[in-house]
This record gives sequence, structure tokens and C-alpha cells, in this order.
Amino acid sequence: MAGSSFGQAFRITTFGESHGGAVGVIVDGVTPGVELSAQDVQAQLDRRKPGQSYITTPRQELDTVNLLSGVFQGVTTGTPLMMILYNKDADPSAYDNIKDLFRPGHADYTYYKKYGLRDWRGSGRASGRETAGRVAAGAVARKLLARRGVSVLAYTLKAAGISCDTFEPEAIEKNPLRACDPAAAERMLERITAIKDDNDSAGGIIECRVRGMAAGIGEPVFDKLDAEIAHAMLSIGAIKGIEFGAGFRVADMRGSEHNDAMDSNGFKSNNAGGIIGGISTGEEIIFRVAVKPTSSIAKPQQTVSLSGEETTIRTEGRHDACICPRVVPVVEAMVCVVLEDHFKRQAAMLG
Amino acid sequence: MAGSSFGQAFRITTFGESHGGAVGVIVDGVTPGVELSAQDVQAQLDRRKPGQSYITTPRQELDTVNLLSGVFQGVTTGTPLMMILYNKDADPSAYDNIKDLFRPGHADYTYYKKYGLRDWRGSGRASGRETAGRVAAGAVARKLLARRGVSVLAYTLKAAGISCDTFEPEAIEKNPLRACDPAAAERMLERITAIKDDNDSAGGIIECRVRGMAAGIGEPVFDKLDAEIAHAMLSIGAIKGIEFGAGFRVADMRGSEHNDAMDSNGFKSNNAGGIIGGISTGEEIIFRVAVKPTSSIAKPQQTVSLSGEETTIRTEGRHDACICPRVVPVVEAMVCVVLEDHFKRQAAMLG
Amino acid sequence: MAGSSFGQAFRITTFGESHGGAVGVIVDGVTPGVELSAQDVQAQLDRRKPGQSYITTPRQELDTVNLLSGVFQGVTTGTPLMMILYNKDADPSAYDNIKDLFRPGHADYTYYKKYGLRDWRGSGRASGRETAGRVAAGAVARKLLARRGVSVLAYTLKAAGISCDTFEPEAIEKNPLRACDPAAAERMLERITAIKDDNDSAGGIIECRVRGMAAGIGEPVFDKLDAEIAHAMLSIGAIKGIEFGAGFRVADMRGSEHNDAMDSNGFKSNNAGGIIGGISTGEEIIFRVAVKPTSSIAKPQQTVSLSGEETTIRTEGRHDACICPRVVPVVEAMVCVVLEDHFKRQAAMLG
Amino acid sequence: MAGSSFGQAFRITTFGESHGGAVGVIVDGVTPGVELSAQDVQAQLDRRKPGQSYITTPRQELDTVNLLSGVFQGVTTGTPLMMILYNKDADPSAYDNIKDLFRPGHADYTYYKKYGLRDWRGSGRASGRETAGRVAAGAVARKLLARRGVSVLAYTLKAAGISCDTFEPEAIEKNPLRACDPAAAERMLERITAIKDDNDSAGGIIECRVRGMAAGIGEPVFDKLDAEIAHAMLSIGAIKGIEFGAGFRVADMRGSEHNDAMDSNGFKSNNAGGIIGGISTGEEIIFRVAVKPTSSIAKPQQTVSLSGEETTIRTEGRHDACICPRVVPVVEAMVCVVLEDHFKRQAAMLG
Repeated sequence: MAGSSFGQAFRITTFGESHGGAVGVIVDGVTPGVELSAQDVQAQLDRRKPGQSYITTPRQELDTVNLLSGVFQGVTTGTPLMMILYNKDADPSAYDNIKDLFRPGHADYTYYKKYGLRDWRGSGRASGRETAGRVAAGAVARKLLARRGVSVLAYTLKAAGISCDTFEPEAIEKNPLRACDPAAAERMLERITAIKDDNDSAGGIIECRVRGMAAGIGEPVFDKLDAEIAHAMLSIGAIKGIEFGAGFRVADMRGSEHNDAMDSNGFKSNNAGGIIGGISTGEEIIFRVAVKPTSSIAKPQQTVSLSGEETTIRTEGRHDACICPRVVPVVEAMVCVVLEDHFKRQAAMLG
Repeated sequence: MAGSSFGQAFRITTFGESHGGAVGVIVDGVTPGVELSAQDVQAQLDRRKPGQSYITTPRQELDTVNLLSGVFQGVTTGTPLMMILYNKDADPSAYDNIKDLFRPGHADYTYYKKYGLRDWRGSGRASGRETAGRVAAGAVARKLLARRGVSVLAYTLKAAGISCDTFEPEAIEKNPLRACDPAAAERMLERITAIKDDNDSAGGIIECRVRGMAAGIGEPVFDKLDAEIAHAMLSIGAIKGIEFGAGFRVADMRGSEHNDAMDSNGFKSNNAGGIIGGISTGEEIIFRVAVKPTSSIAKPQQTVSLSGEETTIRTEGRHDACICPRVVPVVEAMVCVVLEDHFKRQAAMLG
Repeated sequence: MAGSSFGQAFRITTFGESHGGAVGVIVDGVTPGVELSAQDVQAQLDRRKPGQSYITTPRQELDTVNLLSGVFQGVTTGTPLMMILYNKDADPSAYDNIKDLFRPGHADYTYYKKYGLRDWRGSGRASGRETAGRVAAGAVARKLLARRGVSVLAYTLKAAGISCDTFEPEAIEKNPLRACDPAAAERMLERITAIKDDNDSAGGIIECRVRGMAAGIGEPVFDKLDAEIAHAMLSIGAIKGIEFGAGFRVADMRGSEHNDAMDSNGFKSNNAGGIIGGISTGEEIIFRVAVKPTSSIAKPQQTVSLSGEETTIRTEGRHDACICPRVVPVVEAMVCVVLEDHFKRQAAMLG
Repeated sequence: MAGSSFGQAFRITTFGESHGGAVGVIVDGVTPGVELSAQDVQAQLDRRKPGQSYITTPRQELDTVNLLSGVFQGVTTGTPLMMILYNKDADPSAYDNIKDLFRPGHADYTYYKKYGLRDWRGSGRASGRETAGRVAAGAVARKLLARRGVSVLAYTLKAAGISCDTFEPEAIEKNPLRACDPAAAERMLERITAIKDDNDSAGGIIECRVRGMAAGIGEPVFDKLDAEIAHAMLSIGAIKGIEFGAGFRVADMRGSEHNDAMDSNGFKSNNAGGIIGGISTGEEIIFRVAVKPTSSIAKPQQTVSLSGEETTIRTEGRHDACICPRVVPVVEAMVCVVLEDHFKRQAAMLG
């Protein structure tokens, strides 16, 4: 109801604010007997952590995961995994001057309208730091999916208006944008650096591919596989849109173009993006999400205070000029959670 | 788990196949004491029914709703509403020649892979007819939302490559495309007629606006209002993408452009599309969805049989050359369900 | 939320009032490819129907089930089963004289307080007729459990103060009480007849045994197998208590007596009733439920009207002097639903 | 699905094993703006902690709660509360000699059958220590219920075969049994001391009363208020049965005796135990639960090892001779969670 949980058979529940005691996650429904170490989880968290390049925030959070339950002698027991990251680098006084102001683009105003009050230290629960719990849970799902031969890969396809022209998977983790085209990545970095120096920020597009996917996974009516992926993606703060396969281009296509014909080798094209009728076709699942420019910018912006007075605000400090490279592991994590959940739901139906 | 239910506090569960005994819905969590008649529901179903124009299927289904529980003396009792539409125009023998073939673009292959068998009469559970239950449930949600001053309006924004240039709400129900620009609608109709005569089909884009929306509605983490709307939209068979507010254009925008500044009159722009941090801002909620061209086309297409033999298929008969106008009421219905659910969830949190 | 659904992986949703258009159920999560006919379901419904003996109501409802979706060519398809029983024998005018009165023992007052209004024809949603949907769903679960070698047997253990002394399973369906001791059944019948002729009603105890149960089924914390069975049982209107294995006698036992020791043949006793730590032990699951005397009696009772005036009420007409024999199939049905759900949940965890 | 969560609008999720890093709970759906301190929670945990008397375990756990999220400036924010108790007094080597044995009465065997492995340190997830999270969550629910004028009181009614004769609420917290009759409490203590000295343990009955309850709370079909309380109670490890109001005595009663008549002052009796048709009547909710004797006893018991060899086991060490006084706060906590959840669900329906 209150929406801090996601998934059914593989279910995650996150907690925590950016400036409270900790953030973290409980994962329920984990397959027992699977090897799992804190290091498996830490490796994914390190991809999300701040301070990886000039264009991401230099904030130094101690993103060290603690695995407090559900593992015994190095393997999962089937009971809930609890993973926690304590908050260290939290100086709430830094927020004193904006505690009565609504920062444009942030959820300050909407939280205030919903709850009648808000935790004004950082973005509270709306902070990107909440996604650390998702990444931790996704690392577990990723391990379970690997046993099924399924892997999930996301990368920046476009940033600050510059698109990738090539798809070079091995280049992704080697450039600060996590872009799939290293040449484009250089141009992106250059432009975003300029935007940052102009006290501004940039948006982008992330693409995600699922390989090794079995056919027949997904629930056919409300919990279509694409519907649940869309739900998962739009639950990530910065994401404003999603499209599968041919995506919005379908508006200009004819049925004879869009339908994926079959021959004895399988599908001859993949306009559907690997999902038809909400169920996986066995082809690569492919989709793209739109990432808005970071809301926190040092440029002055017009806003109002709690009491309705007009004023100007500058969100100084340590912010990401383009959040795409740090959203990439969050996208992957959430897709892993959705897929593992649906594999288990399929097992329940047949079991 | 099996995904035939949607919503939590206002919860709908649909059942039925296109060629079984009936389709319908149970709605649980209805506010008691609200006037409701079968006619309230029928009015919405009539907008979805086949045979409304040359470009939609001429199939004559008897889309008459029967309201079998949850209403007494003309008002809701708070117990589950059960609404059913019996199937009449069902001649399964028409499907004999394709029962062993996978129709391109349809869920035939994926259902077969999921369940190990499939109901090959029409599209079975994957038929658009399943959405009649959604429209019926949406009609109830719409009545409840009206009491809150909230209204939902969807319309075709683009079809067969032709876009609307104007937004004339009063024109929408007066043209067969349900387009918001009557001049564009005429050109769309002309082009889709030609496409249909060429045994093909066309895609489009539907836009949706929610007016009178209160600020503060939506759950802030996984069940963000936009995440749940995205879930609802992608659960509609033909929809392949969604974007809110500025949508995919955010990839080219800067934070200073995208952030919606505020003054004492409220927000000065609405790039966010009425939702920030998953919670409504009180501005108009606005989003667009991509609708793929109808999969059933009379043009020959390459496919395979159950036993893997290559063959050619033509889906003859009565199909929609562009499904957009019939998806419009389904979009509205699902948005109504999401919104009413979230208003009730907010009441639970505060209550 | 509104509580018309039960189960997770095998999920049932009922609808309908005693004097509305119909009662019925949607079952979601059914294993595909299993033979199922309306007759399979009807056989169980016939055990619940009125008019089976002098001590049950002579009301003639047409309890014929219609299976409207989810079955194709005699086998389940994996999509939702919808089963409906139309209401025929419904003369609401019979209730005119009590529509403003709260019948003692009935949910009239509590529904009125909850909803602010109530459907005063019969007991509306609180009618025992709602359980027809449960029995129909249970018949499906029973078929799935049979494939696992699991069977569920309930029977009257005590009625009108008379207890069974023997356990003769083959006698159960042969006496009107569904008692497990035919001699006791005769004495029960005699006493209940006298009670009925005195315009009164009688309570009882039903016992239930699950045979062929595998060890290791049940979720260990909140959804313990016994916790979910208790939930299911107390959701049946007439049931006021439940105890497993040694039950309330544990209050007088010592650990050394109560603990079920093991040897190489397995457990040496079954005080636990087949469930320890919420998980099945593989022994017979055994529990008992307390069934209150039917609330509707012809004897005058003191009550008040909607406006608070004191008055006397007699619930004349066609009622069950002892509801136990008709509750027996409902108990079995709900246990089947719980068990099938938990087998599927176990498959999800391991799957 | 995996059952570590309970409740819907007010939802708790527990984690942790007795000898892992920590135990704790996430509470989602908390009303914002309510004063809450760690001390509010600690006060309830102190009632559950070990070492309160000779008949409870002398184990010294550091049951200090840490409140890590969801509270800001002393009030709830509406975001998830995370409460954690770190495990300190954990010496797993103490369990080395029994790690391959199934302790009678414990969930060792069933966990092993369910998961294929088990955490043999203490009782792992099946430990009573898991209930610390429930008590913490219940303390929050209790605060919210106090605002509604609702209070929950449980106490030992019977222990080691000795029953209370009087109901003296003010005596409950003053005797080590938490019995409602101080004279009976003395006799209980004497007898349990003797049982303990005999290396054995004793069972009992706990009664619970809810005062100040509004009428009209509860969902009428599957989620009846009594059904959900029964679910909550049977989810507590030691509890083997529950009965409401007249309970199992209904088997000997007639309708004219059992029905609670009404006059202009309200109900004239309370055989129903405050709930009719699953909805509260506004009378005191009253029920009793059966508590089995503690499974861990020092007396030798027959069992088998993992490899099936017969052997004898003595569970030495620090155990509760009668667990009733420590179950009392757990019963209260779970009832508080159920009630707060149902108040919020009622608000959702009407809201």
C-alpha cells in the first residue's frame, strides 16, 4: 500500500533517508543454498557510488554494505536477506538555508503536500541514495539469474544531446558515461563538463538489453513483463519515459513492417523488443528509458517558500552534472528483480 | 501472482477469453453509498465496442454489461461489484485453419511457450476483448473521481504518421479517430482507409490528460504515481511505450530548462507532466503512449506452425486497421483505476 | 485490502450476495493442462447445498455452477477460471418486515456500522451463500492436490453437545450430520430435531484431517501453514475458534509430554497436529473448529431497530437447525485452497 | 509470498535470525506527524526481554532498539520506520553438539525439509527472537491506536494447569507470570518452579481484551477481523489454538443462548467476543490463545540425526520454563498491528 515493496515471489522492501541512520533493503523469497557474499553485492554498489568522475558528485559516502541476515556459512538460507548501508557523510546543517524552500525539480513540494511535513535534510526518502538498497537487492537477483543463463546489460545511449553510433559492450565500464560508444563518450564528457561549468546539468537516454532470456516468462494480463519493467523503471526518480523494441516509432509503422515474422530459425526481427502479449519471446529484451537532467543545479532558479513567498534558490554543492552513468546500475538492478520475480512466478504456476 | 488483478485499495480482477462464455470484472474496495447504474458503465463500454467506423472491426459483439452484485437500490453497497459481458458472436470454426500457426505480432507463440497449450479461438485471454472488463471497472472509478473533481481525457495525438496540430477537446468524440484535431482526423482517416485497402494496419500515439488533480497523491518509492500509470498502460496489449511531460525530449534538455520553477501562483511550467518524485504536483498530469499497428492484417506474412514448419499466413476477417480510437477509452479507464486507488491509499495513510 | 480475495499463488476472489444476481468466484493461478469439468465442481457444491435433510434449510436454490472461462477442450488453460451460480429463489419481500431491524447473531448491525447502509435482503454479502464460490474454488484446488497425493477430509465431531466416540470415515457422507460416528449421528439428529421443534438451533465442532501431506510446506514467519489455515477457517462466518493437534489441552501439558519425539520411523506422536514452526512435518495435519449455533431462530429475541427502538424479532422461515454438515465442505474447500497455494509458493521459492 | 510481511495498509516486514547479525523490522504505512521515540518502542521490548524472573531464560540479550529511519525531529515522517536490534550474546559453538540433530518440538526438521539446509545456531529464523521485530512494530501501532482511544491488554489466564479466578488488570505487570489473578500467579510460579527443577516446561492460556474499539472495523469476507487476528496469533511460534468470545463452548450452546440480544443500551451480552460477521461490534474484543510448553527442556528426549540415526538429546542451557509471560507482549503487539491496519483499510474504503 505505502509502496516501499516491489515484487511478489522475489520481494524487496527498502528503507531509509539520505541523512537518517542508514539505507537498506530486505529481500524475501531468496532461493536457498546459493553462494552469496557481501562482495557480490559490494561490486554492484561500487558502480552506483558517488565520486567516480568529474561529472558525478564528489560526495564521499561510505557505501559499504553489511549483510545482516539470511546467509549462513556463505550460502543463502531462504530466509530474508537484510542489507544495510550506514549513512556517514551527513551534515544536515548544510541544508538549513533551504529547509523552508521548495527546490525546483525536486520532490520537496510534493512530499510536503502528501505528508504535511518533510525531512528537509537532502532529499530525505526521495534521495537517489534510496536506490542503494535496490542495487543491493539487484545484485542478489543477478546471481540467481546467472544460474538461469540470463544476463542484463544497460548503458548510456545518449547524453546531453549526443548519441552513440556504435554498440561496443566491452567499452561500457571503461568510460565515465557508461556509454556503449567510446568516441561518443568523449564528446559527451566534454559537453557535460561545459554544462557543469555553466552551473547546469544534462539529461540522457539509457538502453537496456537482456540476454539469454527464456521464452514464456511473464504474466499475461496486468503483470505483463513489459508492464512490470515499466513500473520498475518509472519508480526510479529520474526516469520520465520508457519504450520497448521499436518504441515510439511504431506510430509511423505499418503492421506488415512491425510484426516480427518467424521462420524455422525463430523470429526474423525484434520490433517487439523481446516481449509479446506481456510474455518473453526468447529474443533479446530491449528497451530505452529517458533520464531527466539532474534537478540540483547551481544556477539561480525561481521558487517559493513554505509560506508562499517568492525567492531565488541555488542548489550549491556536490551534485551530478549527468546522472546517467550512476542510473545504469540501478536500471540493471531493477530489471534483475523483475525477471527473477517472474521466473519464480512461472515456477509457482507450473509447480 | 498470476496477474489478473490490479490495484490495492481499489482493486480490479478480470476474467474471460474472447471465445469462452463471457468476459468481465470484479471490483473490490468500492466506496459505499454512491449512485451507480448499468447505464453509467454501458456508456463507457459503447466507446470501446467494435463497429464504430470503417477503420474499426465490423464485428458485432453484444457488449451489454450485466451488473450482478454490489449495488442495491441504485447505490453501491461497498461489497464487490461484478460486471459481466456474455460472448455471443463467437464462431471458433473460423479459427480452425490457423489453430496450429503462430500469427506474427500476436501472443500465440508466447502463450504456447508459457502454458504448453493455448486457446486458439481468437486470441483467447490475449484478446482486446479482455479490456471490456477494464473499461467497466474504469467507469466506476470515473464516477468516484468525479466526486473528487478529477477528470481524465485521452485522445489520438498521432495516427498513421499524421500528427494533430491543435487541441480541440470538444472535437474528440466527434471523429472516428478520437483525435484532438478534426482536420488532422480527416487526413488520418483517409490514410488509414488506404492502408486498410492495402491489407495493412497503422500505429499511433495517444495522449492523456488528468484535470482537477489534487497535489500530494502517489506513493514515493516503488508505487510512484507515474510508475503505476506506466504499469497500467503497458498492461494494455498494443502499447509499447510511455512518456510523461517533456518525455524523451529530456535527453536534450538542461536542468535549468527542465525544472519547473514556482512563483506565488504555483508552477510556471509543467515539464514534469504533473508528477514529481512519484507524487502529483496539482498540475495537469499529461503523458503519451505509443500504440503499435494492429497485428492482424490480411497481407500474407511468414510464420511457422506448432511443429516448426515454415508457412504463410493471412489473418483475414474483421480487424481494426488502426486501434487507437478503441484504445482511448481503455487508457482512460486504467488511469481512472490507478488514480482512485491512490486517493484511497492516501486516505489509508492519513486515516 | 477490501478482503474479497484469498491466497497468493493460487488466488480466489469471490463476489455476490444472497439476493443479488449471482454468487461466484474467480480462481487465478491455476496449473494449465489439468482436466476439469463443471461436474467436478458441481459434486462439491451438491454437498453444500440446502435441503439435504430435515435439520438443514429446505430452501431450494438452483446451485448449478457455470464455468465461464479458463477451460478449453476439457482442460485448464492457466488463465482465470470464472465460476458463477445464478440466484433464483430470491424473494426479497420476505425480508420487508425485518429490513429496519438488527437480527441478533447476524452481521446486520456491524455491516450497517461499517458501510452506513446495508443490503437487507437475506444476509446480503454475509450470507452463507457466499461460500458457494469458495466450495467451487476448493474443488479445483482439490483436483490439483490429488495430483500431489494429498486429500482433505472434514466431519462433524460434536453437535448439540453430543460427541463422536469412533472415527469411521466411510460413515461420514452417509449420515445427515456428516459425523464420523454413525451411532452418535443418530443421537445428534434426534436432539437437533427437538431443538429445531423448540424454534432453536445448535452448535458443534468440526474436525479436519489432511492426509498424504509432504513435509516442508509452509512459510515460516507470518504465513505459517497453521496461521493461514486459521485465517481461512475464521473467515467462515459461523466459526469461532480453531485448535491444532493437542490444541487447548497444551495448557495442561508438559514439554516432555507435548514434544513429538522421533525415531527412525519418523515422529512417534502428533501433538503438533502435523505442523511445527509453521511448516508441515509430513504427519497428518489435524485441527478442530468451533461452529456456533445458527443465528436465525424462530424463537422471539430482543433487538433494536435502525432508529434505536426496542422490539422483538422472530426469524421465521427456512433455516438450518445445525449448520455443521453444510460447513464441512466449506472447511475442506478452504483447506484445499490454502494447501495448493502453499505448494505453489514452495515451488516459487525453489524455482 | 515468502511470508516475512504482515498487514496491508500498515505493513510490517521482519528479518533476522537469533545468531546472525541482527533482528528487526520495517514498518510501512505509518501515519505522518506522530510523536515517536526509541523509548516508546524500548518500553515494549523490555516486557519481552529474557531474564525477567527465575522461570524465564537468564540469557542476557542486549535488546536495545535502534530507530534508523522514518522519524525526523521526534515525529514520524510517513516513510518506512526501520528498527533494529543487534545480536550480541551469540555463541554458536554452544550448538555444535546438536547441529546434526532434530530437537523435538522445534522447527529443526521442518526447516530442513523446506530449505534443504538450516541455520543450526539456536533456532535461526524460528527463534522467538524474531518476535522482537513484531513487538517493536506493535509499539508503533499501539501509539496510533491510542489516538483512536483503543487499548489492548493481554495476560496469562492459565499456566501449568492453574487458572486465574479473578480479573485484576492492575496486578498483571506486577507478577512474573503476567497473570490477571495475583493469588493464582503465586501458585503458578510455585508449580512452574517445580516443573523447571524437574527439567521440564509448562504450557498455558493467554487471554486478550481490546477496549475502546469502534464498531464497523473489519473486512467482511476473507479478511474478517477475527480471521486476521487468528492469522496473527497462530503466526506466533508457541500458539496452537484461538477462540473468540464463548469460543469452543458454542458447541454446547443453543442459538437463543449464544446470540447477543440488543436493547437501547447496546448489546446485552458478548458471546461473539466483539466481532460479528468479521466486523467489530463496538463491544470489547475478547479472545484466548493456547500456548504450548516450551520445546527446549533438559530432560532427555528421543530423536534422530540428519542421517536418520536414533539418539537422545537434552536441550541444556538457558530456557523459559513457561513462555507465557514473554508471549503476552507479542500477542498485544500483533493485535495492535491487525487493528491499526484495519482502521486504515476502513479509511481507504470510505476515503
